[in-house]
Order: sequence, then structure tokens, then C-alpha cells
Amino acid sequence: MQARRGAPARQRAASRKGAAIKKMSTTREQAERARKAFLKLSTTTDRTAILKDLSPAIEQHASAILEANKKDLAEAKGKIAEPLYKRLILSDSKFRAVIEGIRQIAQMEDPLGRLLQETELDDGLTLRKIQTPIGVLAAIFESRPDVGPQIASLAIRTGNAVLLKGGREAASTNAALVDVIRRVLDKYGVADAVQLVSTREEVAELLRMDDLISLVIPRGSNEMVRTIQQSTKIPVLGHADGICHVYIDEFADTNKAVRVAVDSKAQDPAPCNAAETLLIHSRFPEREKVLKALSNAGVELRDSGFGSEYLDLIMNVRVVNSVDEAIDHIHRYGSRHTDTIVTENKAVAERFLNEVDSAGVYWNASTRFADGFKYGLGAEVGISTNKTHARGPVGVEGLLIYKYQLIGNGHIVATYTGENAKPFRHRKLS
Amino acid sequence: MQARRGAPARQRAASRKGAAIKKMSTTREQAERARKAFLKLSTTTDRTAILKDLSPAIEQHASAILEANKKDLAEAKGKIAEPLYKRLILSDSKFRAVIEGIRQIAQMEDPLGRLLQETELDDGLTLRKIQTPIGVLAAIFESRPDVGPQIASLAIRTGNAVLLKGGREAASTNAALVDVIRRVLDKYGVADAVQLVSTREEVAELLRMDDLISLVIPRGSNEMVRTIQQSTKIPVLGHADGICHVYIDEFADTNKAVRVAVDSKAQDPAPCNAAETLLIHSRFPEREKVLKALSNAGVELRDSGFGSEYLDLIMNVRVVNSVDEAIDHIHRYGSRHTDTIVTENKAVAERFLNEVDSAGVYWNASTRFADGFKYGLGAEVGISTNKTHARGPVGVEGLLIYKYQLIGNGHIVATYTGENAKPFRHRKLS
Repeated sequence: MQARRGAPARQRAASRKGAAIKKMSTTREQAERARKAFLKLSTTTDRTAILKDLSPAIEQHASAILEANKKDLAEAKGKIAEPLYKRLILSDSKFRAVIEGIRQIAQMEDPLGRLLQETELDDGLTLRKIQTPIGVLAAIFESRPDVGPQIASLAIRTGNAVLLKGGREAASTNAALVDVIRRVLDKYGVADAVQLVSTREEVAELLRMDDLISLVIPRGSNEMVRTIQQSTKIPVLGHADGICHVYIDEFADTNKAVRVAVDSKAQDPAPCNAAETLLIHSRFPEREKVLKALSNAGVELRDSGFGSEYLDLIMNVRVVNSVDEAIDHIHRYGSRHTDTIVTENKAVAERFLNEVDSAGVYWNASTRFADGFKYGLGAEVGISTNKTHARGPVGVEGLLIYKYQLIGNGHIVATYTGENAKPFRHRKLS
Repeated sequence: MQARRGAPARQRAASRKGAAIKKMSTTREQAERARKAFLKLSTTTDRTAILKDLSPAIEQHASAILEANKKDLAEAKGKIAEPLYKRLILSDSKFRAVIEGIRQIAQMEDPLGRLLQETELDDGLTLRKIQTPIGVLAAIFESRPDVGPQIASLAIRTGNAVLLKGGREAASTNAALVDVIRRVLDKYGVADAVQLVSTREEVAELLRMDDLISLVIPRGSNEMVRTIQQSTKIPVLGHADGICHVYIDEFADTNKAVRVAVDSKAQDPAPCNAAETLLIHSRFPEREKVLKALSNAGVELRDSGFGSEYLDLIMNVRVVNSVDEAIDHIHRYGSRHTDTIVTENKAVAERFLNEVDSAGVYWNASTRFADGFKYGLGAEVGISTNKTHARGPVGVEGLLIYKYQLIGNGHIVATYTGENAKPFRHRKLS
């Protein structure tokens, strides 16, 4: 939410940094070209046609793309951590999923130009609030080569331009994919709406260009997201930590408590929506049964380390004496991501749902539901623990904003000012 | 849009800064108390009752407040610039306006808890998107003592806590006003929902507390807003520059051109929505008539300085050869605030309305309409040139966000995963 400025800010930046700007001009020039492409893509281009051309084009270049991926894998072998290496593999099924994802995004309704609100201010003076794109996005990701085409197609759907900064380990795969995307865009005169940015130095430069880039989307480790958040004034859509809680209330059904606790952790301990801490009311009679079920599912139980995100089969356990103590614990150690209560007591559940200040607050359901696809958002841009713009799993609406159009007939403010001021009508039309 | 974090971030900060944190604990403790008060104010407190108590309370303490203002004025006399001194005066009419403003905010519908969307994910598993407050706000303002009670009452209406940092010149007036507000809040157990922060050092500290403060609202000079934007990672709601344009098209009606050009500047040249630049199509036949009207209204015309915000009776004039050139000029020199076209040609107007990437794009209307009250928003938090969260004149919706509530009955993700995965229903309920 920093204000974006046009030339004046650029001029100031240029005069401040002098020659340094010139030396680093490449990434800046890319961002300037992206901004021009955004202005065209968002207004005069057939975005649905582009998206419809995109999946067959990627399919057609399958061999070149998969070949590039093999090259990346060969070079990365033994040099990067095993999980990163696994995520680098563009398997046949992942490649299919990329194409299917773009096909689905092509079928989504065009969100631009939607009339969000209309107010008649006075005779012949109408105010319209219209859905628009944001501008130039920067997506920064590691390893996973399926992220590039996914974010690129979401950007095209919403009329935004995007600068993609992939990891060095996926350089060839990303280049092959973006090459195909840009060839399709080029047919519509907007090749620069999607651009690849390759060197590590360019990340720092991207994060400084708050006059040209309006939103940063990081996809990677907590550490990477945290570093990005700490080094830019551009809004960052995402979350560093996913410290989620399961609270088993005094009035919990034992069967539900076991199901929800085990699923929230052991169904898959790696994602951000897996729970890290189990809070149990001291008067819940079946505590041992829940702990045993977790142990049987391979979960190591600890009684310290609150506030750590293990992303593994490890869980903190704490006994609390009230729902207030549970809520206080969540506010103290949580990351405002997703927290759940298991209880049969509606009044207690409602207190939890209202009072816990997290993006997702659940009742008798696993924290693992926190996901754009499970929420039915159609596509997921990311999960946000921010308190402005977009919160929780974010679909395409996170890439949209609005502008006001005011249609008059020579209307001036003097008419509505001073002694004989005409009053406004302010009639809602929609 | 930076991610907010709970204790882990605080612990990190504390370990990083060690003893420094302890020394500066006062403002941090204020913010921590504000966060606690926010959690209470947003969930269990009767916000309408507080607001209804507030205007009579301020009225009752009128003499103490006006006395404090006289003290500030006496101390500031001759020491601060004349415009600042004028804005420092809490006249009877301004005092009445403060009280009336709070009365109107008390009458607004409670925006919290509003159901924005409801989706049935599956049998007995319902997702609800609920309107919520943001958290702790920081409002930083200069001189004008009416800003404090206005932002405080908007914060209370929306369930947010607010730290108010007023200028040193208004210290006594702000203290007297906040004292009354806190006495009312105290009756409801949420005194700390509104707090005054007084020293200049505390601003820097406030702007660093991105783990506790979720939104900064600056009200003051362009320079002040720019400094704040440059020195914080917390989202800033506002704008530094208001570089607005009037474009007189080839097909403009002369009378409308004169009216709109003169009103956009001379009706009041000081606010951010006053136009700084007049663009005129080279084939518009009555150029001289428009320029003469501006001169007659006391406007000095220049042909350079594009991108400067004069806030005075000075205007840049540039002749362009097409609407494209006008749009390019606006994108190059504008501040994405408000720009207007005067034309009788609907196709040209629609291009301008669609293609100019500003918060407000007008057709045959003065730029001076860019204002929350004129838009009928009920109250104005500020005017934003940001591209995320809120854009243009921002009403109370700029102080609101949402959370997701998921209500299940022991639902787990394992049911919807793997070989025999049950499909989601994703039926929109509202």
C-alpha cells in the first residue's frame, strides 16, 4: 500500500542514485517495458484469446521444455537439497497439470471492467467503481518450474504484467516455458507482459522499484519470504510462517478430536496449513487417547518450542484451563494463519471463531483445509497472513483492485460549495 | 500487506535488538496494550454505545478542550508557518463539526461480522467470509486537532485500535481531546483502544513495529507523507502527490472546457485534487478562450514543471496532438490520483476512462470531485494512490478486512485426498 508515483519519483530516484541507476538499467528497463505492456494488456488486448492459445502452445513445445528440465536436473543433482531437487522435477503429470491449469484459467470469467458500485451524485453526474488490474507484479520463486506458467496465466487473466524471478536451479526450464508464453503474447503485441529476470542481484533491484512494481508474490521457503518482506516497501502477498493450532476443548467429541488433530498434522506435515501445536483443555477426559492417536500416526510430541514451525511430524502439546487461555496462547505464538477448535459447545465455538484473530478460524475441521482450491476459489495466488488487501487463501481477486470513473456533463465543484450549495443526491444505482 | 506475525517475530526482534528494546519499551508497550484493546473492542464491546457517549462527552468538556487549544496557539504564535497556525485553531465551528462528525459515525451501520460470502464445501462443511477490523492503526498528523477525534471515532466504528501521533504544536489540544475519548472508552473497559503518542522519536519506533501495527494513516504535507512511506514496511494509506490533469480534447465543448478547467484549479488550488496541468489538443479551436478564463481566475500559466505539485494558482499547459499523447503524458508525469477529459466524443472519452491508470478518471467533470464526502462514502479516511487494498477516496471500508470461518463436524482433508477422494461441492450459498 505504498503510494505509487510516476515520473517525479523516478526523477528523484535517478537524481539520488545518479550513475548507479544507469549501470543497473536492464532490470529497470524490463520493468518499464512491463508497465507499458500492462497498460496495453489491461485495456485493448483479448486476454481470453491469449490464454486459449497458451495451453496448446506449451503442449506443442513439450519436448523442448522437458529437455530443458532434464538439463536443470542434471546440473542440480547433488548440489541442492533433496526436497528442492524433487520440486525441480517437471514430471509428465506435473506438466499435464500446468496445461490443465491454464485451460481452467482461460475458462474463467474476465474479471476486468466489472461494475462494483454505481452512485448518482446528482442529475447527470454518475460515479462508477470499476474492477481493474493492479499493474506490474513481481513473482519470486524457487525450484518449482510449474509456478512460472501458473502465475503468468493468472496475471494475464487479470490484466497484470509480471516479472518472473525463478531460482538459478530451474533456469533452463523457466527460460523454455517463458519463451513459449512470450511467443504467444507477442502475437497480440504484449510480449513484455511476462518477462523472466534471472540473476540474484536483480531480486534486490526488483524489490527497490516501488514506483514501477505494485505487488510482490514470493513462493518459497519461510526464510526466503521473510527476507523479501524485510527488504522491500512494495506490498508482499504471502506469509512467512504457518503456525497453526488445534484446540481440543473441554466439550470436544473424542472421535472428532482424534480425527481433526491427526489430520491437521499427519495428513501432510509439510504445508503451511499443517498444525504445529495442540492445545488441550485440562478437563477434556480423553487427552491420552488423542495423544496416542498422534503417536500412532508417527507424530513426535513435545512440550516446548511454541512458535516454531516444524513442517515435520513434530507437534507441541500444551494443557490449558480455559478457552481464554487457548485464545491467548494462539495470539501470543501463532502466525494469524489458521486455527481450529474441536468442541460440541456452540457458545465456546463462537467465542473462538469471533475472537481468534487469524485468517482462518475453524470449528470441528482440520487446519489442512486452508487452501484456495479447497475453498473453491478456482485458482490460488498464495495464502496471506497480511491484514490489508487480501487475507487467507487468495484467488484472482488478490490481483485486482478498482478505479473510480466519474461521468458528468460539465459538472463543477463550485455548484456544490458555499452559501447556495446544491446538495448531492448520492443515490445508489447498483 | 507485509505479513504480520505474533510472538516469533517479536522474539526475533527482541533477540536482535537486545537491550535497545527495553529502553524504548514505552511505545512498544502502548502498541501491545492497543492490540489487547483491539481484540476486546472488535469482539465483545458495544461500539455503537461508545460512539453515542462520545459526542456529549466532548461537548461537556468543551471549555477544557478550547482552553488547551488557546494554550497551544499562544505557544505556537510566530513559531510555525501561517497555514499550520491557521489549521491549529479549533474554532467554535470546527469544534461543532467534530461533534457532528462523531454523531454521524455513531449512526453508521456496524460493519463488523457482515457475511461477505458463504460456500458449502460439502455436506455439513460451510465456509463463511466475514468482515472484520484490521487491528492496530497508527495515525500520524500535523497541526489540525480535529483529525484525532475523527480518526479515533472511525477506528472505534470499525473495531480497530489506534495510536494517534499528533504534532508537537497541538500537544495540549490533542491531550485534552484524547483524555475525554479515553474516559468514555474506559467505561467499556477498552481505554487503550485510543492512545496518544507524543514525542518525535516515537514516530520512528511506531513505523518499525510491523508486527503490531497493521496500517499507517498519515495526514499532512506531501513531504511528511513521503518520509513516512520511505521509512516503513507497514502499509501506508494515503498519497504523497496529487498531480492531476485536465485534458481538453479536440472535440471538447468550449463552455464545459472553461468550466472544468477553471473549477479544477481555481475553485481551490490547495487540495490534492486540484489540477496541476492542462493538456489541450492542438486542433481544439478555442484554446485561447480557456487560457484567458484561467488567467482571469488568477491562474499563472507555465509551459514547464510537469510533475510538480504547486498547490497554488499556477498551472502547466501543454499542447498535445492526440488523446494518446495526453494519456502518455499523464502516465509519465501524473501521480495516479485523478485526471479528467473534456470531450463530446464518446469513443475518445471511453478510451481515456479505460486507459488512464489513475484512482479517478473523469469525463466532463472537475477533478475537485475526488473526495470521500462528495463520493457519498459517509466519511473519509484518506485518498489513496496505492494499487492494493484501497484506491481513491477511502471510506470506512479501508479500515476493514475479512477472515474465513469454516464450520465442520469433524471434517478432515484425508476424505478429499488420494485415490478415493470425495469431490468438493463448492456451492455458493450467498
